[in-house]
Amino acid sequence: MVNVPSIELNDGNKMPQVGFGLWKVENDKAADIVYNAIKTGYRLFDGACDYGNEVEAGQGVARAIKEGIVKREELFIVSKLWNTFHEPEQVEPIVKKQLADWGIDYFDLYVIHFPVAIKYVAPEVRYPPGWFVDGDSKVEYSKASLQSTWHAFEDIQKKGLAKSIGVSNYSGALLLDLFAYANTKPATLQIEHHPYLVQPKILELAKSENVAVTGYSSFGPQSFIDGDMSLAETVPLLFDHPVIKKVADAHSKTTAQVLLRWATQRGLAVIPKSSSQGRLEQNLDVTSFDLTEEEIAEISGLDKNLRFNAPLNWGIPIPLFS
Amino acid sequence: MVNVPSIELNDGNKMPQVGFGLWKVENDKAADIVYNAIKTGYRLFDGACDYGNEVEAGQGVARAIKEGIVKREELFIVSKLWNTFHEPEQVEPIVKKQLADWGIDYFDLYVIHFPVAIKYVAPEVRYPPGWFVDGDSKVEYSKASLQSTWHAFEDIQKKGLAKSIGVSNYSGALLLDLFAYANTKPATLQIEHHPYLVQPKILELAKSENVAVTGYSSFGPQSFIDGDMSLAETVPLLFDHPVIKKVADAHSKTTAQVLLRWATQRGLAVIPKSSSQGRLEQNLDVTSFDLTEEEIAEISGLDKNLRFNAPLNWGIPIPLFS
Repeated sequence: MVNVPSIELNDGNKMPQVGFGLWKVENDKAADIVYNAIKTGYRLFDGACDYGNEVEAGQGVARAIKEGIVKREELFIVSKLWNTFHEPEQVEPIVKKQLADWGIDYFDLYVIHFPVAIKYVAPEVRYPPGWFVDGDSKVEYSKASLQSTWHAFEDIQKKGLAKSIGVSNYSGALLLDLFAYANTKPATLQIEHHPYLVQPKILELAKSENVAVTGYSSFGPQSFIDGDMSLAETVPLLFDHPVIKKVADAHSKTTAQVLLRWATQRGLAVIPKSSSQGRLEQNLDVTSFDLTEEEIAEISGLDKNLRFNAPLNWGIPIPLFS
Repeated sequence: MVNVPSIELNDGNKMPQVGFGLWKVENDKAADIVYNAIKTGYRLFDGACDYGNEVEAGQGVARAIKEGIVKREELFIVSKLWNTFHEPEQVEPIVKKQLADWGIDYFDLYVIHFPVAIKYVAPEVRYPPGWFVDGDSKVEYSKASLQSTWHAFEDIQKKGLAKSIGVSNYSGALLLDLFAYANTKPATLQIEHHPYLVQPKILELAKSENVAVTGYSSFGPQSFIDGDMSLAETVPLLFDHPVIKKVADAHSKTTAQVLLRWATQRGLAVIPKSSSQGRLEQNLDVTSFDLTEEEIAEISGLDKNLRFNAPLNWGIPIPLFS
């Protein structure tokens, strides 16, 4: 089985550098996919309220534990606070609901999904609640500041509901503000990261503050073409890109492995998903070979500062990255 | 004298739509320049601690008032909180110092200059303090959150030290967070704004929240070429741009006037500066003619999302816009 290195977080916990991302994993397949990924050697699972599949992902975990394939403490289970639960008094109840959905009693890492507070929607009314207060088109904001939400995160960490706490989709300015008000610094930052969105300055800032970075959407436009985002069709797929193909050929690896190795060699954790067993194994094996510095630089040179996962690109009128 | 329209702010105060920006106005000329601008018809002056010329600007104001050219209440004097004074307990003392420098007892508008809190430097040690804690190369951050600074702004407004309060250089995400925690919404937002940085989404957000927007660096790269910024040399000067020249010719106006009218017609206030009397007069006269919708759209079409006034572009290692 592939040996996946760990990243030591600033709180002393250890996070596998390669994991499995649960975004867009279909409900009726999620339990089998998670169970099979554990058998394949995956230990980190990156979930979220918004992915709508935490119950099924937890069923896959339970089966693997029951069959003795893995112990809970060998897994690193990540989940995220959705935008509608930013009020400090909503954080603990929703973490507990999400833990119950997974069938576990702590998260290894719990993360603020997006830096925006949307009006509360009760889980009984709609779950996952999505971006719109009416489920359809209207955005209503909440009065919860990011500072107040972060202090609630510090509380759930103290209560042992999350071993580590972090943020996602924060800009440089939001991180600087977070570092100012945090009593406990975030252990991790999760950001969109691929050769069209290289983000060197955010990575430098995170490194200087000892915050581990997880890159998502490592394959770039692929995930967004599947989601019918027209912006994703304006650039070549990274799987077909001549620079990526050239490097893949030179190392006898797949283009997916090169994209993931480019990220892990820059120090990031990655959370690809795949529904094919072959790719599942290949995606886990992305720390056992090294790209040259020149290859890394050439891939980084593809940067277009092109962000796909912004609400505006999904037709959601929230200028979060403007 | 040119009639300059006012923008009604969300707190009921009125702000002239065209003013004079004091950035880079030299100390030995500032008093005369301000005095002369008042004689020319300017009523809004946009200053800041960081510009280092508040004493001299105030001398120009005092002379104009003394000579009966204008009354204090006819002026709209803007200043800004520098990054080293973000600790809530530092806000009132530094506002009072800045008011003393100007020789006035209230600001019409006081603004958070940049959304980053830098370690305090006492005015006796170095003033203006600039970006670096040692005056040279080292950045040290403060533990003051933007939320705490904003609440201090709400206090100085209540005390009458500033009639209106606002922010500058805030991104969409920072604004959304500000709207969450603010007891009093900002009256204005000041941002870099020119045809290479059109910022439609921030403008939409500000409009939806009834926050007036002031655009700075309306002429784009010009101010930054003067500051030896190499990035500014990578694009054509807007004064020479064929689209701007064509529109200027069609209206028998200068290219500067077209750039300012493009902004004012989009609803923004502008704060150009000039050291020539002719241009001073022309820059004030930028609401008395109208561009066509097609012309506005053509100018907006020059957008490159190109920001000059970011700390990193000045060699300051703070990824504020990353």
